[in-house]
Amino acid sequence: MKTIASPIPGYTYGTSEAAQSPISIAELEQLKRSVGFTTEDERYIRMAGEVLDGQTKELVETWRGAIAQRPHLARHSKDPEGKPIPRYSEASGLRFQQWILDTCLRPWDQDWLNYQQEIALRHTALKKNATDGVSSTPHIPLRDVIAFTAVMNETVRPFLAAKGHSGEEIEKMHSAWRKSVQLQIALWAQPYCSSALAPDEW
Amino acid sequence: MKTIASPIPGYTYGTSEAAQSPISIAELEQLKRSVGFTTEDERYIRMAGEVLDGQTKELVETWRGAIAQRPHLARHSKDPEGKPIPRYSEASGLRFQQWILDTCLRPWDQDWLNYQQEIALRHTALKKNATDGVSSTPHIPLRDVIAFTAVMNETVRPFLAAKGHSGEEIEKMHSAWRKSVQLQIALWAQPYCSSALAPDEW
Repeated sequence: MKTIASPIPGYTYGTSEAAQSPISIAELEQLKRSVGFTTEDERYIRMAGEVLDGQTKELVETWRGAIAQRPHLARHSKDPEGKPIPRYSEASGLRFQQWILDTCLRPWDQDWLNYQQEIALRHTALKKNATDGVSSTPHIPLRDVIAFTAVMNETVRPFLAAKGHSGEEIEKMHSAWRKSVQLQIALWAQPYCSSALAPDEW
Repeated sequence: MKTIASPIPGYTYGTSEAAQSPISIAELEQLKRSVGFTTEDERYIRMAGEVLDGQTKELVETWRGAIAQRPHLARHSKDPEGKPIPRYSEASGLRFQQWILDTCLRPWDQDWLNYQQEIALRHTALKKNATDGVSSTPHIPLRDVIAFTAVMNETVRPFLAAKGHSGEEIEKMHSAWRKSVQLQIALWAQPYCSSALAPDEW
């Protein structure tokens, strides 16, 4: 599997340290249907992975630039006094880069589901900061997690177009990318949901 | 304001019957920043509204066709025996059509925020079925609400292209549409979230 560095601090993909997903592979298949992810999308998300490989650093820098322009988002990587935490930014930045490749290139199996849950928890008070042993905001509001993916989806496009693919290929890679992200944020919502809900309600 | 029928059963936009939004206009402004909604997007979402006006029936039929192909989604408009409920489908279909125009043409003010909360509640056990006095599934899982918007976003595009706009205009309408929908599902997640969360955590 392609990794952008080795080791990546706090990157527990495929290990017993990652959380356990609350949903089954069968439920994931339903969710793929809900999002409309087809075998064509599977081909194009792999193509997107080949295209984005080698550009992950610049892409994360683009996203972090967008975050930096939004103080209500930027605070989540800073300490309680609003100062940067270089070690936190560096480690989470490497994981963010790896997430791009994982989004495109990993098979959607139990390890993938489990690491989605790990990512989900790391947005919440249950695990944010703990991975890196830092002091920052206790959680990222779910609404901002959901909303900011729109900026990520918009700004990824020039990177998908950077290696000379046809307009149709770029559009199909972009569409597959958006569906994968939408499916992921559907999974990331789970830890925010009330434990009083029926499991099926989330 | 443009409405697709009058009256629309159960459509309480702008009335005291609609729920109260848990967030303020100032928090909505932050969420607009999170999703990257610009003044250009405001212009293009209005253009999308003009383009989709007159096509809302066909667009909702397209979405319902996609739902019909997914039994785990289709069950939410049926009775406990899996039979259609024509009155429910008709009323909710009119509201679905109106939602398209509202997404594009309504100002994002307190009435808009409040009706977003009303829509949100109507996906959950708190208000689903109650509006129309029907017996169907008690709720729609949040993950399917989030995921299925990807299908809606994909299938809206030919409708945006149906009135002879340039490729660039179509892309900009589509982008503004996607951001609006992403912001809306961020709002719709709220009633699913644990009341034990800090308000800022959702």
